[in-house]
Amino acid sequence: MAAEPTSASQSAPSPRSPTERRRVVIVGGVAGGASCAARLRRLDESLEIAVIDRGPYVSFANCGLPYYVGNVIADERKLLMASPESFRQRFNIEVFTDTEATAIDRTARNLTVRDLKSGAERTERYDVLVLSPGAAPIRPPIPGVDLDGVFAVRSIPDSRRIRAWIDEHGAKSAVVVGGGFIGLEMMENLVHRGLSVTILEKLTQVMPPVDPEMAAPLMKHIEAEGVTLRLGDGLAAIESGVGAGLVVVAESGTRLETDLVILAIGVRPETGLARAAGLPIGARGGIVVDGAMRTEDPHIWAVGDVVEVEDVLTGQETVLPLAGPANRQGRVAAESIAGRRTHFRGVQATAVVGVLGMTIASTGASEKGLKRAGVTDFAKVYLHPGHHAGYYPGAQPIHLKLLFSVPDGRILGAQAVGHEGVDKRIDVIATAIQFRGTVHDLAEVELSYAPQFGAAKDPVNLAGMLAENVLNGDMPIADWDAIATTEALLVDVREPHEYEAGHPPGFINLPLSAMRERYCELPKDREIWLSCGVGQRAYYATRFLAQHGYAAKNLTGGYTTYRQRTAAGLP
Amino acid sequence: MAAEPTSASQSAPSPRSPTERRRVVIVGGVAGGASCAARLRRLDESLEIAVIDRGPYVSFANCGLPYYVGNVIADERKLLMASPESFRQRFNIEVFTDTEATAIDRTARNLTVRDLKSGAERTERYDVLVLSPGAAPIRPPIPGVDLDGVFAVRSIPDSRRIRAWIDEHGAKSAVVVGGGFIGLEMMENLVHRGLSVTILEKLTQVMPPVDPEMAAPLMKHIEAEGVTLRLGDGLAAIESGVGAGLVVVAESGTRLETDLVILAIGVRPETGLARAAGLPIGARGGIVVDGAMRTEDPHIWAVGDVVEVEDVLTGQETVLPLAGPANRQGRVAAESIAGRRTHFRGVQATAVVGVLGMTIASTGASEKGLKRAGVTDFAKVYLHPGHHAGYYPGAQPIHLKLLFSVPDGRILGAQAVGHEGVDKRIDVIATAIQFRGTVHDLAEVELSYAPQFGAAKDPVNLAGMLAENVLNGDMPIADWDAIATTEALLVDVREPHEYEAGHPPGFINLPLSAMRERYCELPKDREIWLSCGVGQRAYYATRFLAQHGYAAKNLTGGYTTYRQRTAAGLP
Repeated sequence: MAAEPTSASQSAPSPRSPTERRRVVIVGGVAGGASCAARLRRLDESLEIAVIDRGPYVSFANCGLPYYVGNVIADERKLLMASPESFRQRFNIEVFTDTEATAIDRTARNLTVRDLKSGAERTERYDVLVLSPGAAPIRPPIPGVDLDGVFAVRSIPDSRRIRAWIDEHGAKSAVVVGGGFIGLEMMENLVHRGLSVTILEKLTQVMPPVDPEMAAPLMKHIEAEGVTLRLGDGLAAIESGVGAGLVVVAESGTRLETDLVILAIGVRPETGLARAAGLPIGARGGIVVDGAMRTEDPHIWAVGDVVEVEDVLTGQETVLPLAGPANRQGRVAAESIAGRRTHFRGVQATAVVGVLGMTIASTGASEKGLKRAGVTDFAKVYLHPGHHAGYYPGAQPIHLKLLFSVPDGRILGAQAVGHEGVDKRIDVIATAIQFRGTVHDLAEVELSYAPQFGAAKDPVNLAGMLAENVLNGDMPIADWDAIATTEALLVDVREPHEYEAGHPPGFINLPLSAMRERYCELPKDREIWLSCGVGQRAYYATRFLAQHGYAAKNLTGGYTTYRQRTAAGLP
Repeated sequence: MAAEPTSASQSAPSPRSPTERRRVVIVGGVAGGASCAARLRRLDESLEIAVIDRGPYVSFANCGLPYYVGNVIADERKLLMASPESFRQRFNIEVFTDTEATAIDRTARNLTVRDLKSGAERTERYDVLVLSPGAAPIRPPIPGVDLDGVFAVRSIPDSRRIRAWIDEHGAKSAVVVGGGFIGLEMMENLVHRGLSVTILEKLTQVMPPVDPEMAAPLMKHIEAEGVTLRLGDGLAAIESGVGAGLVVVAESGTRLETDLVILAIGVRPETGLARAAGLPIGARGGIVVDGAMRTEDPHIWAVGDVVEVEDVLTGQETVLPLAGPANRQGRVAAESIAGRRTHFRGVQATAVVGVLGMTIASTGASEKGLKRAGVTDFAKVYLHPGHHAGYYPGAQPIHLKLLFSVPDGRILGAQAVGHEGVDKRIDVIATAIQFRGTVHDLAEVELSYAPQFGAAKDPVNLAGMLAENVLNGDMPIADWDAIATTEALLVDVREPHEYEAGHPPGFINLPLSAMRERYCELPKDREIWLSCGVGQRAYYATRFLAQHGYAAKNLTGGYTTYRQRTAAGLP
């Protein structure tokens, strides 16, 4: 995606003849497409605007579909943000539902469409074409993938079919293939319907956007809620079972009997129409657009899950199927089509999912994402503060990981998991990332505090302060993945009763409370790596020892982080 | 406060004799003082550090006191963040509780202190003195203010006395004088204890930091919960009543019989010690400090509620008794004393209070604050979005007001009130303010979205988009306070049944749904001011009419804002 702001005003496509009105045709009437249509009308009353959608609805809440399956949203009309009639009446926008775009004639500027009810084909002329076809759930080419009872979740009719299947067959169990956002949300909703659910996931963690140790508390929670996690095992085949039942055959050979299967492996941009028309497709599989969401063809824009956009953290192109960016892209495209100066700023992959009472969220790059992108000049801190003041009843821990650039302290990403206040902290850090903020900014940010809402030093402030301590050398940190191989002396500074209740292997115990009397017992010719419960006491010990000439380092996040790592199978 | 970063390293005070260790004495061991002490020890093991506090505790959670009174926090030990013993053991910090500092000899660098238990006076030498005495509740000089049963809430013993009074006298009713943070929190907690509560407030609103129309939904909620609000009426006297009872006499002459009185009128910086020592006091009544929290005296720093700091929005000095800034100031002072380059960035008055299930929060300047500061080049928008996606059950409205600079769009302040998600939106906007962000940044910020947590266009995005529409002329706005006097045609664009159920005076009805057919009925030679339920349909109508040559303006926030204004008594 072009990085520079683009002015479209000089080259905005005009109608082909002076007697015709300029005509904008939008393919796909959900999220980006719907946003683009409505915004465009507000900007320009003179245009003809038409929206074409393959499905029976436009502008529906696709993020609500799992909750409709789960009957949390009982009335499917709640999912309809707007109707074809309201588009017509309110915005003078033509809407053609049950209509599929089948070919683009870029030279003639015609779109061939098929009415899916009658089968009739016709041609829609355009001066401007906006492609917003979205992304389709991946259906792996394995035996049995098309059996009855195997579902993906993309549309209201999809969801209706799952609801009907559950009701008609009295479904008691489900296998959800894939442990990402949609897989987790589907699992939650099937549990809510009373089904016994197994998640089959090829990776060794759920929630692939976050690092495995940050997914660990969620995985533990999911299993405690009675869901079976089969991780590190892929889908090999689906077979018919007893009655209407199915058997999911995993790559390991395990056979899982089930009443229905949800495919939530991921999605793939629907680029067929664009490819056939010769529009450039990028390395990540999405349509290539510039900063104004315009394709190589000056008459064609593209928005939403089908495009590649720049990841502002890594500078690399990415495909990010999320509703927020899709909506903003729709607005940007509309502004560009209307001849305004506009620019989509790229994405930072802010996301959240609520699962059975727990919340996991992230923004920016993950550690594995940074490593994949070849970034090495970064550091990380872990912390586990309460979501509000500890003295007020009901404080729940938030497990927080902050990644930042060394030595400049620029925030690269954050991940959080917990029961309350998770989305707030990630949103605050997401905002700081937008401004290319540093950990120093996080240390200083003035957030609202009352006992029910936060702390005088909010978890965000604490994360910034810890990172500052790393950057300025006050708190050298050691990495947990090296404790098995290091020559350093490993010291647990918790109280003896805590140490005895469980500690990482290889650690001796010298409590912080005895440190001032006993520190002379420690060697000066060897690094000392310190751990405690969450990292705070080890920080105090690190500062004390460093000032007395010891080479002390803090194992960030303490025993809590250690346990997250081991739960995730990390060394 | 000096705006420039300050390096203290050249002038850090040294001990008076080479045989003595450098000695830091901190007056006041809560919040700023406690933070300063602990941070200073982490930075410098070589110092002698002593903390002196008039009360029996250091480092207690003063923000938790109302909840201790309300028995939400049942065990007062929960309020103790650290003990004198833990300060000694963990940080090698001497703590003298029940000890009052009575005089500073700046020439000799001695502090006179009195042991409040024995009455004995002694001298504490210092190389560095840190003043963190806090601010005292204002006790107005009216008859009866010292009667038994009249309380202020500053310390654990204060709170203990209120609890005992309620228990011993079987208190059934209370008058809380003052409707600010502490007054509201005390009210909530007394209601929680089963008392019937009246708030007596001199202003015509509660929560003075926000604008009156933004306090209106909270006032309505408080009254619906059975609390009596007596606004626009001050405290004249307190008299003894029947038995242990009291009678609060208001300035209006109204007499309120009650079992106890809480004074929550406000606080005043405790500058007595500093004044007596000749340290400069600012116009707002706080100790004057530089960017490193150092006073005019190079040996004396001051932090917390006792100092004046810069408001980053108005550039004016202010006194802000909040825990977050106090803690950060303590850190800054410690860094400065340790010879590090440091700087306190000023305050933006981010604050929140939870009241009987409702939350009100704000950051930056209020409209009345801007007017007081003489700022005129600003605009405002109101909106009332759901706290999460409308299609997901349980969405609650957030009433949001955004103030921004014209024409550059810099965010000046935000206020929000609602039941859920209020603190999150204010924290996000607070973060943007820290970076001197604009409304364009808010329109673009990529926040986490899943149905339970937000919307594809989060309330923060919507606020930014609305403000952008104002700045770029897409949505000229009219001000509700002019509807009685304007020559403009006032048009309510809601449906007839909504209009008939209630509308602002002087409005005709022309629904948005009929606008495209009927707009020719409207005059072109006269401004048209449009209103709807929350401002969205009026925005659509404004765009439509503007493009057809009408001088249309949107009354921001619609009928919902109108009702907030009338509830607050605004014209």
